[in-house]
Amino acid sequence: MAALPSDMLAIEISRPGGPEVLKPARRPLPVLSADGVLIAVEAAGINRPDALQRQGAYPPPPGASDIPGLEVAGRIAAVGAEARGLAVGDRVTALVAGGGYAQYCAAPAGSCLPWPEGYDAVRAAALPETFFTVWSNVFDRGRLRAGESFLVHGGTSGIGTTAIQLARAFGARVFATAGSADKCDACRRLGAEIAVNYRAEDFVAVLQAATAGRGVDVILDMVGGDYVDRNYELAAVDGRIVQIAFLGGAKASANFARLMQKRLVHTGSTLRPREAAFKAGVAASLRDKVWPLLSAGTVAPVIDRVLPFDRAAEAHARLEADHVGKIVLTLEGA
Amino acid sequence: MAALPSDMLAIEISRPGGPEVLKPARRPLPVLSADGVLIAVEAAGINRPDALQRQGAYPPPPGASDIPGLEVAGRIAAVGAEARGLAVGDRVTALVAGGGYAQYCAAPAGSCLPWPEGYDAVRAAALPETFFTVWSNVFDRGRLRAGESFLVHGGTSGIGTTAIQLARAFGARVFATAGSADKCDACRRLGAEIAVNYRAEDFVAVLQAATAGRGVDVILDMVGGDYVDRNYELAAVDGRIVQIAFLGGAKASANFARLMQKRLVHTGSTLRPREAAFKAGVAASLRDKVWPLLSAGTVAPVIDRVLPFDRAAEAHARLEADHVGKIVLTLEGA
Repeated sequence: MAALPSDMLAIEISRPGGPEVLKPARRPLPVLSADGVLIAVEAAGINRPDALQRQGAYPPPPGASDIPGLEVAGRIAAVGAEARGLAVGDRVTALVAGGGYAQYCAAPAGSCLPWPEGYDAVRAAALPETFFTVWSNVFDRGRLRAGESFLVHGGTSGIGTTAIQLARAFGARVFATAGSADKCDACRRLGAEIAVNYRAEDFVAVLQAATAGRGVDVILDMVGGDYVDRNYELAAVDGRIVQIAFLGGAKASANFARLMQKRLVHTGSTLRPREAAFKAGVAASLRDKVWPLLSAGTVAPVIDRVLPFDRAAEAHARLEADHVGKIVLTLEGA
Repeated sequence: MAALPSDMLAIEISRPGGPEVLKPARRPLPVLSADGVLIAVEAAGINRPDALQRQGAYPPPPGASDIPGLEVAGRIAAVGAEARGLAVGDRVTALVAGGGYAQYCAAPAGSCLPWPEGYDAVRAAALPETFFTVWSNVFDRGRLRAGESFLVHGGTSGIGTTAIQLARAFGARVFATAGSADKCDACRRLGAEIAVNYRAEDFVAVLQAATAGRGVDVILDMVGGDYVDRNYELAAVDGRIVQIAFLGGAKASANFARLMQKRLVHTGSTLRPREAAFKAGVAASLRDKVWPLLSAGTVAPVIDRVLPFDRAAEAHARLEADHVGKIVLTLEGA
């Protein structure tokens, strides 16, 4: 491996605003920490928090880079003195707290995973954010078990496409909501038994009927707003509702008698501010339980679009408009 | 023990309404089930759900007696063929799904506990409802651990006085809210480090200051209404909020961003409709972990008032007005 350069190309947020504020810039290389690695980035995934950060609505957590980007895939270019089990040249994909839209990205060793068998950088970069998020929220926090029913709102988002496949792979009965007939088709192709077009039908009524009035055991919600009360209405006795975003607004009213009488658990989390040890724990579970499914092809990331690094603005515009699955930037030739 | 009579005195709800609708009546003895016992009642505790049932707002669950009363103490008068570990003549206190305001009450064997050492029927009858409720919601569902902080709203209710003592006995830092300076004094005497008079002070501000902005780990709430959002504001990261009633209303609005960002768990439960096996599990935990504290006097029921059986209406009027701790009916001489 060649010596590391002194600076690198990155995409920075030149000021808060629309996709057009994303601009190429020269930046110094990130600092390698003792328990981390430096990755020569080949592809970087795009996620909704990147767009919120671009708008100025989601400042990076303390210590994180101001460069956007929460997941990268590439080869390890340098290894910290205390980083175990990783070597220069290893192909890894990593969950990072920022700095992904750049030629080099620093990552804690515990947040790195190998590329699944047969994967290229683009597919590997499409994994961390949604797989860490779905695993920790649906299986750890939401305790989804085989034989239970599961609903994800926003079934064609990156999170949605991952959640549908994983819930199905682990034996749940899977439902999804999406905003068009085509998107509902996409949800069904991924393994959803029923996909409800929320513009045309009431998901509570459809899924109450589908479960013979029993309701849904685990709901992964990124909408909030009036979905909070509707989720309480739809949830089964002992159901769990896990909130990972509020695209429909965080302030809402609800009938909490349902929460008490059905013994619901309403909870949620955000991944980015969690400590490295937590992320390393999720990574270990993913490597053990999910990476074999990716290598076998049972579960796969859904790639909406691959765009070259210098078209990050276009990628964000698409993220905020219509897409199914992940949008990934490739640094090949950057 | 004398042969069982064919009928008994009970207090029935003659029609939905105020305390005055509670009337003495002759009723047939309850049916002894194979896995249950018949208790010759000496004292019966009064609880808020009894008042809701009297108003017509809380129908008894399927299979339960229409006679009010969720807890009794007395001597076992008959034992079902499959009821293990209990004998005629044993003094027990029992959690029941209804039928407590009567000379005889049927109880599942698993919901019976012995009287703590040195207890009489009145003190024994004051235990089941609040101790089963607090144990299952604060320690099981809310997972309160030693060293954590705990807040109970309504600190001088039967639930509140039990929750303060148990949380303190198990090593938590205890806070309570109550509606007067006198009631706040009562909370402090029971072990609350801080009691906030909610008519005079904002409990969120007081307890944020007391915890150096960290917030409270477990909140037991029977209020709801605007307390929901205030609980979210006050809760610590990874905090648990357990809802057991809604004296302030079940429909409320809240900022759910706090729930997600702090990874709160908002949950709740009601005890009465739970299956016998669940209650038997709680009873086993109580016998193991809490009954020794009662026998030792470390924890004790707070008795507000003892009234003879035929003054049940007066007992209900007091329950709905001002009281500190439990109101108990005694059947001595009934």
